[in-house]
Amino acid sequence: MRKVYLDHIASTSVHPQVVEAMLPYLRNNFGNPQSLHSIGQEAQLAIQEAREKVAGLINAHPEEIYFTSCGSESNNFALKGLASAQRTRGNHIVISAIEHQSVLHSAKSLEKMGYTLTLVPVDKWGMVDPEEVKKAVKKETILISIMLANGEVGTIEPIAEIAQICQGQDVLFHTDAVDAVGNIPVDVKELGVHALSLAANQFYGPKGVAALYIKKGVRILPFIDGGIQENGRRAGTENVPGIVGIGKAAEIASAELERRIERVKPLRNKLIGHLPKEVDHVTLTGHPEKRLPFHASFCIQFVEGEAMLLNLDMQGISVSSGSACTSRALKASHVLLAMGIDHATAQGSIVFSLVEDSTSEDIDYVLEIFPPIIERLRKMSPLYTQYLEERQK
Amino acid sequence: MRKVYLDHIASTSVHPQVVEAMLPYLRNNFGNPQSLHSIGQEAQLAIQEAREKVAGLINAHPEEIYFTSCGSESNNFALKGLASAQRTRGNHIVISAIEHQSVLHSAKSLEKMGYTLTLVPVDKWGMVDPEEVKKAVKKETILISIMLANGEVGTIEPIAEIAQICQGQDVLFHTDAVDAVGNIPVDVKELGVHALSLAANQFYGPKGVAALYIKKGVRILPFIDGGIQENGRRAGTENVPGIVGIGKAAEIASAELERRIERVKPLRNKLIGHLPKEVDHVTLTGHPEKRLPFHASFCIQFVEGEAMLLNLDMQGISVSSGSACTSRALKASHVLLAMGIDHATAQGSIVFSLVEDSTSEDIDYVLEIFPPIIERLRKMSPLYTQYLEERQK
Repeated sequence: MRKVYLDHIASTSVHPQVVEAMLPYLRNNFGNPQSLHSIGQEAQLAIQEAREKVAGLINAHPEEIYFTSCGSESNNFALKGLASAQRTRGNHIVISAIEHQSVLHSAKSLEKMGYTLTLVPVDKWGMVDPEEVKKAVKKETILISIMLANGEVGTIEPIAEIAQICQGQDVLFHTDAVDAVGNIPVDVKELGVHALSLAANQFYGPKGVAALYIKKGVRILPFIDGGIQENGRRAGTENVPGIVGIGKAAEIASAELERRIERVKPLRNKLIGHLPKEVDHVTLTGHPEKRLPFHASFCIQFVEGEAMLLNLDMQGISVSSGSACTSRALKASHVLLAMGIDHATAQGSIVFSLVEDSTSEDIDYVLEIFPPIIERLRKMSPLYTQYLEERQK
Repeated sequence: MRKVYLDHIASTSVHPQVVEAMLPYLRNNFGNPQSLHSIGQEAQLAIQEAREKVAGLINAHPEEIYFTSCGSESNNFALKGLASAQRTRGNHIVISAIEHQSVLHSAKSLEKMGYTLTLVPVDKWGMVDPEEVKKAVKKETILISIMLANGEVGTIEPIAEIAQICQGQDVLFHTDAVDAVGNIPVDVKELGVHALSLAANQFYGPKGVAALYIKKGVRILPFIDGGIQENGRRAGTENVPGIVGIGKAAEIASAELERRIERVKPLRNKLIGHLPKEVDHVTLTGHPEKRLPFHASFCIQFVEGEAMLLNLDMQGISVSSGSACTSRALKASHVLLAMGIDHATAQGSIVFSLVEDSTSEDIDYVLEIFPPIIERLRKMSPLYTQYLEERQK
C-alpha cells in the first residue's frame, strides 16, 4: 500500500543528515559538557556550534538561545519565567484564544497563583487583530504571548504589527513559533519579540530538543532549578546528541527553507483548490493566504475527524484532526470554537500538513481516496440523514 | 596515549545496544505518540514498552513511571509538584544538606514562595541520621527529600530506615536516586518512598531522558503544563528515541547489575586501598563501606581539584572534582563543607568513578600517573611550602 505522511504538525521525520550528525554524540563523544576534561570540552564545543546554528536560523545572537526538551517546555519556561521575573511590576497577562495548550495551561496555572489573564479573540480565520491586543493591555500588563502560526488552522499571526503597536508600553512579548520556525522565514529582530519558542521536530530535527530565544537583557527566572547549565537559566545535563541534532536541522533549514516552501506550496494549493470542489460541505479553516505553506486544514460537515483519520490511515494516509497534543482527548478544538465554528462542525476537523518529500502523486492519491471515504462515512451519519430529509421538505 | 574514563558520575557512555535500539526511532519510526494513526501508534507502543522496562528496574508499576528530560527536571517536578499539591496541608519541607543542586535550588525556590525549609545535617561520612530527619518533621511538614546516593562522595543513605521512621506521619517522601538507579539494586517498595528520580545517562542510557517514579495515588501537580502526555502530568511531545533508549538501558541494567558491581567493586577497592598509601595527605571522602560500588572520592591537601583534573586529563585520564553540574562554577562543594571538611581541604576534591568497562590496567595506570602529578603540583603550592616550614620548626 502507498504510504503518504501528511502530518507535519504532529512531527516531521528526522533528516538523514541530522541523524548522521547526532550519531557520534550517541556513540563516542559521550562527555558531559560541564566536565572540565577534554571529553567534556568536546561536548561543550558541539553545543556551542549548535547554538550558533539555531541562532542563525532566527537572526538571534547565540547567547540568546536556551536549549530545552520540547516546545511545551519552552512555552512553560517563557510564560512562567517571564511572568515571575516581572511580578513586582504587575500581574496581568494577555494571550490569544487560540494558543497551544502549553501556553494556555501555563497561563491558567499563573492565574491560580494570583495573575490575571485576558484572552484576546480571533476572527473567523483565526487571525488576531493587533488593535484587540492593544485594547487588552493595561497598566498592570507585564506579558503578551501570541503565537506566530497556528498548527491546527495554519494561520500566520501579524506578530510584528502587534509588537509594534505594543512598543513603548514596557510589556514583554513572547511568541510561540513552534509551528513556524524552519518552515517560514522567522527573524526575531523583524518580529520585535522578547522571547520566542521553537522545536526541532517541526523542522526535521529530533524529538526531545527545542529552544527558547530570550532577547539579551530580558529578565527571566529559571524554570528548571539546579546547576549552571544554559547560563544558569536551564539546569540539567545537556541533551548533547539532541542539541547537535537541532543545530544540524537549523543549518539545513537555513539553506533549504526557500526551496522547501517552493516545493510544498503548489502541492498544498492543489489540495485547497480541489478538495472543496470534490467533496460537499467542506470549508477551509484558517486564513486562505496568510497561512503556513505546508498546511491545508478543513472542517467537513456530518463526519467525525477521528473516523476520517482512521479510515485514511487504513489507506496508508497519515493526517491529524487538530493538535497532536490533545488528539487523544477527543474534545472539540478550542481553536475552531474561538473562530466561531459551531461544535458539530468542529468535530469534522482534518489537517493535511505536507512534509518536504511530499509529492504530487501523494496529493493525487489523497484526492482519489478521500472523497469516497467521506461519502461512505456520511451514509452512516444520522446527522447527515436528518440534513437530507430536512432539505427535501 | 592511554584513555581512561573514570567519570561515571558526570555521564556514562551509551551502551551500543541502547544506540541500536534508538536508531529505528530516529530513522524511520518518527511518529508522534499522540497521533491516532498507525505511525503514531507504533511510537506509543514503543513508549509503553520502555515504561515497563524502567518500572521493572525499580520494582514499580509501569503507570507509576513518568518520563522527563533529565534528572534535574525529575527533581524539580518532584519537589515543586508534590509541595504545591500538598500546599493546603502544610508548608514545611525537609531535605538533607548534601542534596544535588536541582533539589536544593528547587527547595530554595519554594522557600521564596512561602514554604519553610529545614536542612538536615550529615555526619563526617555524609550520612544522614534517620533520627535527625524524625526530629525535623513537624505538624506542617508535607515533604521530605533525601537522596539515595551522593554522587560527590558516594555515600548511600539509609532511605528505607528514614522512610520507616517517618511512617504514619502523613508526609510524602521523595528520593533523588539519579546516581543510584542502574548501579545498585533499587526497589521502590523496599525503600518505601512516594517518589524517586532517576536518569538514563547514569546507567548507559542517553542524555536528554530521565524519569520520575510517582507512587500510585500520590497527588502531584504537573511541572510542564500543556497537552495530555504522560497521563496529563508532563506535557510535551515525547522524546521517543530517548525513551526507547532509557527503556533498553533499564533492561540491560536489570540483567547486568550484579555482574557490573562484581566487576567494578574490586577495582574501586584497589584505588581506595592504594591511593592513600602512595600519596600523603589523602583522605577518602564519604562512607568507607556504604558507598556506590563504582565510586572512589578523596580530598587531597595542598592541591587544587581543578589542577589535578587538568593534569590527569593531559595524561588521558578523565575524572571529576565534585559534581559536573557545578564544576565550572569552581566553588567549594556544599557537600564536603556539610561533612565538616574545611574549605581549603575541600578544594582538593577528586572523584574517580568507574564505568562498566574499566579495567585493572586502567587503575594501575592511575596509580602510576597520579602520585607524581600530586608531587609536582604540591611543589608549586605556597600552602604546602608553608606547611613544610611549620613542620620543621
